[in-house]
Amino acid sequence: MKALVYHGPGKKSWEEKPKPVVKEPTDAVVKIFKTTICGTDLHIMKGDLPTVTDGRIIGHEGVGIIDEAGSAVSNFKKGDHVLISCITACGKCEYCKKQMYSHCENGGWILGNLIDGTQAEYVRIPHADNSLYPIPAGADEEALVMLSDILPTGFECGVLSGQVKPGDTIAIVGAGPIGLAALLTAQFYTPAEIIMIDQDDNRLDIAKKFGATHIINSSNENAVKKVMTLTNSKGVDTAIEAVGIPATFELCQAIIGAGGNIANIGVHGKSVTLHLETLWSRNIIISTRLVDTVSTPMLLKTVNSGRLDPKKLITHHFTLDRIIEAYDTFENAAKEKALKVILTNE
Amino acid sequence: MKALVYHGPGKKSWEEKPKPVVKEPTDAVVKIFKTTICGTDLHIMKGDLPTVTDGRIIGHEGVGIIDEAGSAVSNFKKGDHVLISCITACGKCEYCKKQMYSHCENGGWILGNLIDGTQAEYVRIPHADNSLYPIPAGADEEALVMLSDILPTGFECGVLSGQVKPGDTIAIVGAGPIGLAALLTAQFYTPAEIIMIDQDDNRLDIAKKFGATHIINSSNENAVKKVMTLTNSKGVDTAIEAVGIPATFELCQAIIGAGGNIANIGVHGKSVTLHLETLWSRNIIISTRLVDTVSTPMLLKTVNSGRLDPKKLITHHFTLDRIIEAYDTFENAAKEKALKVILTNE
Amino acid sequence: MKALVYHGPGKKSWEEKPKPVVKEPTDAVVKIFKTTICGTDLHIMKGDLPTVTDGRIIGHEGVGIIDEAGSAVSNFKKGDHVLISCITACGKCEYCKKQMYSHCENGGWILGNLIDGTQAEYVRIPHADNSLYPIPAGADEEALVMLSDILPTGFECGVLSGQVKPGDTIAIVGAGPIGLAALLTAQFYTPAEIIMIDQDDNRLDIAKKFGATHIINSSNENAVKKVMTLTNSKGVDTAIEAVGIPATFELCQAIIGAGGNIANIGVHGKSVTLHLETLWSRNIIISTRLVDTVSTPMLLKTVNSGRLDPKKLITHHFTLDRIIEAYDTFENAAKEKALKVILTNE
Amino acid sequence: MKALVYHGPGKKSWEEKPKPVVKEPTDAVVKIFKTTICGTDLHIMKGDLPTVTDGRIIGHEGVGIIDEAGSAVSNFKKGDHVLISCITACGKCEYCKKQMYSHCENGGWILGNLIDGTQAEYVRIPHADNSLYPIPAGADEEALVMLSDILPTGFECGVLSGQVKPGDTIAIVGAGPIGLAALLTAQFYTPAEIIMIDQDDNRLDIAKKFGATHIINSSNENAVKKVMTLTNSKGVDTAIEAVGIPATFELCQAIIGAGGNIANIGVHGKSVTLHLETLWSRNIIISTRLVDTVSTPMLLKTVNSGRLDPKKLITHHFTLDRIIEAYDTFENAAKEKALKVILTNE
Repeated sequence: MKALVYHGPGKKSWEEKPKPVVKEPTDAVVKIFKTTICGTDLHIMKGDLPTVTDGRIIGHEGVGIIDEAGSAVSNFKKGDHVLISCITACGKCEYCKKQMYSHCENGGWILGNLIDGTQAEYVRIPHADNSLYPIPAGADEEALVMLSDILPTGFECGVLSGQVKPGDTIAIVGAGPIGLAALLTAQFYTPAEIIMIDQDDNRLDIAKKFGATHIINSSNENAVKKVMTLTNSKGVDTAIEAVGIPATFELCQAIIGAGGNIANIGVHGKSVTLHLETLWSRNIIISTRLVDTVSTPMLLKTVNSGRLDPKKLITHHFTLDRIIEAYDTFENAAKEKALKVILTNE
Repeated sequence: MKALVYHGPGKKSWEEKPKPVVKEPTDAVVKIFKTTICGTDLHIMKGDLPTVTDGRIIGHEGVGIIDEAGSAVSNFKKGDHVLISCITACGKCEYCKKQMYSHCENGGWILGNLIDGTQAEYVRIPHADNSLYPIPAGADEEALVMLSDILPTGFECGVLSGQVKPGDTIAIVGAGPIGLAALLTAQFYTPAEIIMIDQDDNRLDIAKKFGATHIINSSNENAVKKVMTLTNSKGVDTAIEAVGIPATFELCQAIIGAGGNIANIGVHGKSVTLHLETLWSRNIIISTRLVDTVSTPMLLKTVNSGRLDPKKLITHHFTLDRIIEAYDTFENAAKEKALKVILTNE
Repeated sequence: MKALVYHGPGKKSWEEKPKPVVKEPTDAVVKIFKTTICGTDLHIMKGDLPTVTDGRIIGHEGVGIIDEAGSAVSNFKKGDHVLISCITACGKCEYCKKQMYSHCENGGWILGNLIDGTQAEYVRIPHADNSLYPIPAGADEEALVMLSDILPTGFECGVLSGQVKPGDTIAIVGAGPIGLAALLTAQFYTPAEIIMIDQDDNRLDIAKKFGATHIINSSNENAVKKVMTLTNSKGVDTAIEAVGIPATFELCQAIIGAGGNIANIGVHGKSVTLHLETLWSRNIIISTRLVDTVSTPMLLKTVNSGRLDPKKLITHHFTLDRIIEAYDTFENAAKEKALKVILTNE
Repeated sequence: MKALVYHGPGKKSWEEKPKPVVKEPTDAVVKIFKTTICGTDLHIMKGDLPTVTDGRIIGHEGVGIIDEAGSAVSNFKKGDHVLISCITACGKCEYCKKQMYSHCENGGWILGNLIDGTQAEYVRIPHADNSLYPIPAGADEEALVMLSDILPTGFECGVLSGQVKPGDTIAIVGAGPIGLAALLTAQFYTPAEIIMIDQDDNRLDIAKKFGATHIINSSNENAVKKVMTLTNSKGVDTAIEAVGIPATFELCQAIIGAGGNIANIGVHGKSVTLHLETLWSRNIIISTRLVDTVSTPMLLKTVNSGRLDPKKLITHHFTLDRIIEAYDTFENAAKEKALKVILTNE
């Protein structure tokens, strides 16, 4: 089969690889129908993730069809259409029993990281019963690719951990795909005001269309001052960090109101300064989280019922064999006005 | 001033009464601008509530303007526009400190019950600081009359106690004003499916317009069977009882899924049969609640931000001096297609 | 092997049965070391549970040693000492993913009910990875038999669902083994007052030793009146029903305070009267629950650290082959002053 | 009357001051019976708190007797014995309605800070109804002085915000009075293991007596390594920071387990480094909190029922007029083996 393979920093190729097979009775092999590229994949390609080694097939998102199911797999059989979760969960370790699949002792984020991933014609999924989800008949499968990672991440790490509530005023710092996923799913809880902060006018325009009530371009406006004006100097109830650099985490601390929540989604490469000298008495909560994908069944219900339209996040389409080109587009997201790209294995 | 006065079962009159005055330093006197009639007022008029005695001015909803504020009132001053809560809260008893204002030791539901109420030109509000809410400039005051009782009741007793969550399938039994208030506010939490059950096609049509995904007329359909079909025999996640008779509570028990919540809003005059012989092992929660109106600040924010439009619930308008006529309309709600009537003190 | 077999109402025998074997890759066969008898087993023996058919081996509690583990079992291997949960959980169905193992689509309470149980020399445990728990080296294994059912039941259905909090005043109606398990585990949350109500002075004396602050023998005292005196007429914060008959559920309704919780543990054979005519406005929560055994890992930690001593609940010991005699003792619990009996497979 | 007055950094005196009087109808004047000194008072005396100005009477803890009650005070009358909360709450602002009294718009921590405090023969308490608590007849009033600040602080900021649960392994960094208050109240939730970390052997010995299961002197042991050994390299479920310097917050980050809570109690003068480069994926929660004293009613119940013995925290006694001497003792806490000192107004 063909797959996208990482060969060290800056090197990737679309090349022939052996088709995966069931190794454990709990495995399934899935024929990929559609996949996508994640911001994390770009980091991998730069060599930022030492856990990813030369020869690894990249990718942790996608939908497909069961090609082979191990003898202990009971939820799926050959021919079933499935959504692949970015998180592999054994369902039987201490963390899985606490619904903290991100820290599964036999899984977690391993796809396209410690084991071969989904940017390929086939992928082996360990612990298939707890790591795949059935796609209801008639569903728009392309839309569901957004449920592999981006929507549960925005929702769980940003919205759930940030405890967004009806009537709240929230800010989302970063209007990239993850920030927009948080924006879409924050609306599950009907906050009164949603302030979106970014430096890209195109993304802010999209945010407005997706439901932001206020947008701030922090490259040409004083974001702190504007948020304080909008909130009568009280600050926001929830600040969602969806970038992953010190400056944006700093911004969240500056705009959080007393009793508020700072929910970190961003993947940080550096430590940040925490202003306990002022925050110690402000009754705030700061949360970090690697997505658990425990919300996937709920997200499927909201998509099926038309409450959530994940397709909004898709801007570009390629056939899977044009994946190198798709990476180019995704790497130049601002210029290309790209959010998520869909790769179809035809 | 003029006021609607209860004179025993079946007897009411629009008559002259002394204008109320501040009696305690924590009192305020409010000039009524707009008020409405509650289903409970009809019960009072029939003589169903022994706590309401001859001579009582009825009514516990409304908006108005502070006419006089006691010396210890600090949140309001003469001329302020205010929303009157149906629940009076002292803010300093054991129950108020637990945010259970409904059981306030110095208040609770007393307006138009134990003390004179709002269907009058003026009303005295005890513990004004905790029992009135400021109306933001520019707000649609008529819409806010729905926040005195009906919307916090539907929301707190039905939606909050019923723990409605994104993706859930819920049923609301009863499409009267309270059930519709639950329907509107349930959508704060984005359930996937909302099944509305009533026996009045007009109200079910309104429910559909208000966001119900399914409607069932239980007078000509088998509601249990239909709900079970809609839910693949699993039953609903939350069943909200918004009628107050044994049959509707029975229905809630028949359609509740394992792990589900039955949230009672209805005012019951009789005991009901609880089927513990089947429910003991079904992991369900049944809640009862007299509205606390703790959600009023949140509801004000959702109205101000346009997330909730309470005016949808208003079907008829009268001047306050035509209140007897308004009662007639409201008593014949089905025939008149009436939900809530607004009475304006011009 | 030898096992206790049900042969229809009133008929049981200790007889030879085939030793169970691994049938599915997720099964394990456990050699029983110690088991016990549950009140439910007595109901089975009377013929009250139609799901239990002639020929069934009874019992759903115990500790033992893995004799054989299926190929897909990864948490356990031959020779491991294990605690058997009364609830079988597949770990991969909709309900297991919600931690509602009681309603597992492939398990639930099946041991000694739909499949052969633990009152035998060996037992087959389906879905072993999620239905067994490792016993730490050095643990008192006899004590852990109380963690198969009785302690998670008292804790989850009574204490957790009843939301017992520090400083609360709670009442437990029924001082049998389950009520006492609720008493022991309620103390995890440090309620201020624990009122134990029963009709057996011996059990009430035990309750006092186990930490009850007040005891009421409802056969010779007016329990409602006494509770109201103890609570300054406010009623209790939580009432735990641990009997399962209408009279005790009635009592819980009579003593519950405004804002309180009635947590039902009892297995009810009949419906009860729910006094919504008074409770509708009292802001109460009623919960029912079949134990999920999700708290087993936590309970193991409290036992290991010496915070909980389950052995207090054990009053009698027999060798497994004397199980018929043990049933006699347990059936005459009041006379024999029996709580839990331990059967050892020597 | 006599009072302890701050006269700028390093200068304090026990001097004559006018006896306070009721200024607002919601005020009460309390005759101090017993008071104490807080670590914060030492900071004030050093000049660390610019909000405290020359001439201010210090102190925010104590018990006493109502000497005069304003006309709008309804919970108390002259002669009532009361507990003074360190936090003044109006009960009617936005924050009070959310039970976040610490941020009361008309109060918060003002006693002995923005208004005159309790280290005096009399003190004026604004918003008396919500800022004082009745002392039950027969209570040990001296013990209750610990409920003015230290116990609610340890409990709310450490234990509640840290979400301590039965069976948990927790660490408390800092065995001063606040850390010990967290230790005592953490046991309300029955954690399995409580690791106490400090650099003072005397305090660690006390911690052991108060219920710590493990003690670590971080001046001569590698605390991180030892905690990791004790927790099988998993880290703790909750780390409570009770010192307020970067090193101890750093330690909390190093020992927190995946999915854990870091609850900050310490008053920090400097910012700290937050290691998001590792913590971003660890699913942790960090909380800060200025005590709200919402738990005071609950704490009173636990003391009254004998579940909590606050007197353990008292090591020294003085008459109020010897307060300068008491400060000397408290400033040399390690040498004097002092925890809390009681000052009695005889």
